[in-house]
Amino acid sequence: MVVVMEPKVQEVKIQNVIEHLKEMGFEIHRSDGVTHTIIGAIGDKTGIDIRQLEILEGVHEVIRITDPNKLSSRSFKKEDTIIDINGVKIGGDEVVVAAGPCAVESREQISIIAKAVKKYGGKILRGGAFKPRTSPYSFQGMGETGLKLLREAATKHELLMITEVIDVSQISLVSEYADILQIGARNMQNFMLLAEVGKLRKPVLLKRGMSSTIKEWLMASEYILKGGNQNVILCERGIRTFEDYTRNTLDISAVPVIKKLSHLPIFTDPSHGTGIRDKVIPMARASIAAGADGLIVEVHHDPDHAKSDGAQSLYPEQFDEMMKELQIIAKAVGRFID
Amino acid sequence: MVVVMEPKVQEVKIQNVIEHLKEMGFEIHRSDGVTHTIIGAIGDKTGIDIRQLEILEGVHEVIRITDPNKLSSRSFKKEDTIIDINGVKIGGDEVVVAAGPCAVESREQISIIAKAVKKYGGKILRGGAFKPRTSPYSFQGMGETGLKLLREAATKHELLMITEVIDVSQISLVSEYADILQIGARNMQNFMLLAEVGKLRKPVLLKRGMSSTIKEWLMASEYILKGGNQNVILCERGIRTFEDYTRNTLDISAVPVIKKLSHLPIFTDPSHGTGIRDKVIPMARASIAAGADGLIVEVHHDPDHAKSDGAQSLYPEQFDEMMKELQIIAKAVGRFID
Amino acid sequence: MVVVMEPKVQEVKIQNVIEHLKEMGFEIHRSDGVTHTIIGAIGDKTGIDIRQLEILEGVHEVIRITDPNKLSSRSFKKEDTIIDINGVKIGGDEVVVAAGPCAVESREQISIIAKAVKKYGGKILRGGAFKPRTSPYSFQGMGETGLKLLREAATKHELLMITEVIDVSQISLVSEYADILQIGARNMQNFMLLAEVGKLRKPVLLKRGMSSTIKEWLMASEYILKGGNQNVILCERGIRTFEDYTRNTLDISAVPVIKKLSHLPIFTDPSHGTGIRDKVIPMARASIAAGADGLIVEVHHDPDHAKSDGAQSLYPEQFDEMMKELQIIAKAVGRFID
Amino acid sequence: MVVVMEPKVQEVKIQNVIEHLKEMGFEIHRSDGVTHTIIGAIGDKTGIDIRQLEILEGVHEVIRITDPNKLSSRSFKKEDTIIDINGVKIGGDEVVVAAGPCAVESREQISIIAKAVKKYGGKILRGGAFKPRTSPYSFQGMGETGLKLLREAATKHELLMITEVIDVSQISLVSEYADILQIGARNMQNFMLLAEVGKLRKPVLLKRGMSSTIKEWLMASEYILKGGNQNVILCERGIRTFEDYTRNTLDISAVPVIKKLSHLPIFTDPSHGTGIRDKVIPMARASIAAGADGLIVEVHHDPDHAKSDGAQSLYPEQFDEMMKELQIIAKAVGRFID
Repeated sequence: MVVVMEPKVQEVKIQNVIEHLKEMGFEIHRSDGVTHTIIGAIGDKTGIDIRQLEILEGVHEVIRITDPNKLSSRSFKKEDTIIDINGVKIGGDEVVVAAGPCAVESREQISIIAKAVKKYGGKILRGGAFKPRTSPYSFQGMGETGLKLLREAATKHELLMITEVIDVSQISLVSEYADILQIGARNMQNFMLLAEVGKLRKPVLLKRGMSSTIKEWLMASEYILKGGNQNVILCERGIRTFEDYTRNTLDISAVPVIKKLSHLPIFTDPSHGTGIRDKVIPMARASIAAGADGLIVEVHHDPDHAKSDGAQSLYPEQFDEMMKELQIIAKAVGRFID
Repeated sequence: MVVVMEPKVQEVKIQNVIEHLKEMGFEIHRSDGVTHTIIGAIGDKTGIDIRQLEILEGVHEVIRITDPNKLSSRSFKKEDTIIDINGVKIGGDEVVVAAGPCAVESREQISIIAKAVKKYGGKILRGGAFKPRTSPYSFQGMGETGLKLLREAATKHELLMITEVIDVSQISLVSEYADILQIGARNMQNFMLLAEVGKLRKPVLLKRGMSSTIKEWLMASEYILKGGNQNVILCERGIRTFEDYTRNTLDISAVPVIKKLSHLPIFTDPSHGTGIRDKVIPMARASIAAGADGLIVEVHHDPDHAKSDGAQSLYPEQFDEMMKELQIIAKAVGRFID
Repeated sequence: MVVVMEPKVQEVKIQNVIEHLKEMGFEIHRSDGVTHTIIGAIGDKTGIDIRQLEILEGVHEVIRITDPNKLSSRSFKKEDTIIDINGVKIGGDEVVVAAGPCAVESREQISIIAKAVKKYGGKILRGGAFKPRTSPYSFQGMGETGLKLLREAATKHELLMITEVIDVSQISLVSEYADILQIGARNMQNFMLLAEVGKLRKPVLLKRGMSSTIKEWLMASEYILKGGNQNVILCERGIRTFEDYTRNTLDISAVPVIKKLSHLPIFTDPSHGTGIRDKVIPMARASIAAGADGLIVEVHHDPDHAKSDGAQSLYPEQFDEMMKELQIIAKAVGRFID
Repeated sequence: MVVVMEPKVQEVKIQNVIEHLKEMGFEIHRSDGVTHTIIGAIGDKTGIDIRQLEILEGVHEVIRITDPNKLSSRSFKKEDTIIDINGVKIGGDEVVVAAGPCAVESREQISIIAKAVKKYGGKILRGGAFKPRTSPYSFQGMGETGLKLLREAATKHELLMITEVIDVSQISLVSEYADILQIGARNMQNFMLLAEVGKLRKPVLLKRGMSSTIKEWLMASEYILKGGNQNVILCERGIRTFEDYTRNTLDISAVPVIKKLSHLPIFTDPSHGTGIRDKVIPMARASIAAGADGLIVEVHHDPDHAKSDGAQSLYPEQFDEMMKELQIIAKAVGRFID
């Protein structure tokens, strides 16, 4: 932390700040410049509220030095984290694609879609059983029945399975069925939920909150890592901006930023990120071109009659087309799709 | 819903849209204009995803007509909702102020603060026992012990008590102690939590999510109202914008907007809305001047040593000063502070 | 400026940074902590791009210390700037209100409105002669004829007159007629225009850009102050956020923030800030309650037939009502309206 | 336009709305549903302020139907606009890259960079002669001397030349030297400037304003097209969001959105869009993968000593590497780089 004092401030105010810092446990480094005195406060003090210092008299500005030693940071761990789930390696040279419907609707539906996902090169089957919906009047998902159908279809077609867990009370149930637990954007700061999945060793895909900064997102991942669960996949899914043509604004620059700041793998979700079917493929290509480790996309064989998000779901033949284009782009950036 | 077709579209595409609408259960009204055909779709169909229609061929635009018959809306219930809690009436002519520390820290602390809150005209004691924190390394609250201390101080000083509930598993515990349950901004779309407190009859203060539109906020209130709990107080607490001088941007215009759209009472939280002590009083005044029914503010007798949010907490004497200014402003808008 | 090095960085990288800083003309203060080396760079170097340092090897973070010595800052000039225009004092104890139509439309229109503005206590007549419009197909204003009509009505009713100047080429023309020049939100970073009005001594009302931070806004005011024109009035007029119920989000917290950072007077514009007539009065009250020095509002005697912005214009009788309410609120904050 | 009345509204209010619409020149289509009456208003009435109708009594909602017949829209002109400048075709199958320094600094500098741009496959030389800067204390550009040096270097290395025009008064001067005029983000709504370049036939690259919606951006292009200048290239350069790790958030989804809504070519500017050198190449790849027609990027042979934006400028060898990667990605989406 660095505390910058007002120009020509009285010595007594400087001493007051120094005492506060010492009380907080910091080691002090003082520099007196022509106009300003600057106080460097050295020490490992996460959880300090810098505003406590900002309001002391004579303080011009307090600047937090980002701690580079967080569990999620690349300075903590230099090598990319590669998560191996039954032989599928996430975060390595392979670009891994998860696909499936927004929500499981029936055995037939999930089976048809799982077959297509497998056929065209997807490695993970996605599908929602418990759906968080903005309106209480919308379809809320099939619950445990949905989990069973997802598992059955995934196993039959030799796919991994990912599904969302929306409350602490569901964790053990969902864990029985899923290979990867998804934490949705609305739950990115549901700290009890994060802490609980941190106690598991099962991989967790952590979506970025729709108004979360990249720093807050990494801080949310700390809740999971701190519990001992190192298998965290980050997933950019669009942020809220003033632009409302697309449902959200997919922040593709988050991909290279995360790659620099963290060793964790990063996916994007071009389906929720745009909300419009014909924007999904261009944004999927852009994500891989920018360096993403994988994608999670919505695919439905009959999107006109899907119970949710049909409008942003790809037809199986579009999924096929997308996978072919991604193979070329993956090569251009030194990756591959199997 | 209104579907606008592309100019000079073929009849077959119009018929296809009409069939889709009929299948969804709508009554159809068709208008053929010089350039456009417009299809009005009448019927009570909450939960429809309009993007399902937007992607049909020949469709130029689909426009949802906001349903004016929601439980939270003023067209559903014309008169202001007034919530009477042991004689304190929220939403009537009185401006009601809740105050207290960010977090309960000790019996002595909460007792000193409760005494000041009462003395200067507050009606409700606020305080956190379970704290959701961005960083896992920050103070997380005293838990049940905190609840007991809050209740004890509130009862002793004849104040109502409000505290936050952050997970479904805590509801019954917190309900034993609190007069009003607070749902925090990060949980505004925790739909399981909303549905559960909807089953109670205890008042709920529902904070606006930091990136939630007013419509989404009212939709979140529907989850509670739909369960039969009519005692909902809305609370504006600042939205996330590009401006970072203040912690959030307190959207005071939400006050008159909510007053027009809904019958529910509305508070603001100028402490979290600004994050800076010397901005709290001006924004408290502004809130009441704009028509808010009450406030929730942070007060601490020793904010320099508060375990959280000290920097945005008022000193008791500042709280006193604020209450005196608010009394005059309340009168200017036809209200009063007791 | 403070440069924080990566933990355990090699000495050669530290020396490289120090050399760069010296080359830029800074005086160096070095602190070696347990994990980090911190380099304080002292000197008056506005216009440095800190990213030049961020990209040097071994640099963890570069932090700019806000220069407190800018012409607009309160540390440069402690006392409030009071601008006296023919006896009307802006920035003193009086709350000053500018009112009038969005655009001048005819001699009769501006005369009727000017009379009402004067009668109910306004001190300044506002009106647009050159209108910047989002669409090229909208009404673009009356031009010089409009300026003449505005001047005539203002003089007749003993009001000051403010109008917008949208291009450098208009400055001398508009200056002949207006007492105060308005720089609109879209021109807040039209640096040539700012520099030109900085050469005058006529007061300038500088609106905040719709996506400008408070720091950028103050920096824009520097362009005017640097030219020697000290008569700058700032005006908050709403920022762009994700919320679209109101046209913009009037950031009332900018009022106390500006009061702390700067000595310049600050107005708000609740008409453009909300875009909806029945939200104007609550937000006008809120602005004065928060400490604004004045307001600029739209008033029209026949808003249903106004050529622009009728929907956000007050009727004269509403303006009367607003002024009466503001008189009481002004008193509550130690101000007055004459 | 569609006007939705409140449920069970009196007939007299419906008639009042109908009269207003007729007065505005609309043809009326009325539908009476179970709860609502909906009034369709047909006619070509750009420039109507829908809020004029929203405030009429009994009106629940007014919905504007986006006019599909604007000059920039794809329904007005189905085929892609291809702009041919001395044989370089923008908007066709070739991906065209403009590159060069942020600002011209000297004959030597621009000559070295132009040589590298040409060598590695760029077709257009970019460089600023007049620089709009947030701070009045920053480098403001070389002016006309800069224009001459740019022209000289472009001609020598057989490149087209693009530079920014920041005020109406510069248009004729800049037009003498440049092949393409650039309108910067801050001037996107400088309507006088837009109208003036609309009178030319020289190509204009119109950057998106940092807080402009896609609709506003297209509306700004109308100002140019309406004047008869059909040679407009749109350029996405990052929007302002709450995320501040990158300088702006490059909205890559704008690329496929513009491709759907408009026939105009679209570029992106990954340099300003990210503000960080090592993010430029990933975002350049992503832009082309998403379907952009070209790029404008900053390249400098000695960015450590650049007078502006050095931190986001590529080294010539990075530019070379980028061009090679883009060639592969262009192929994956059916395009080519010469």
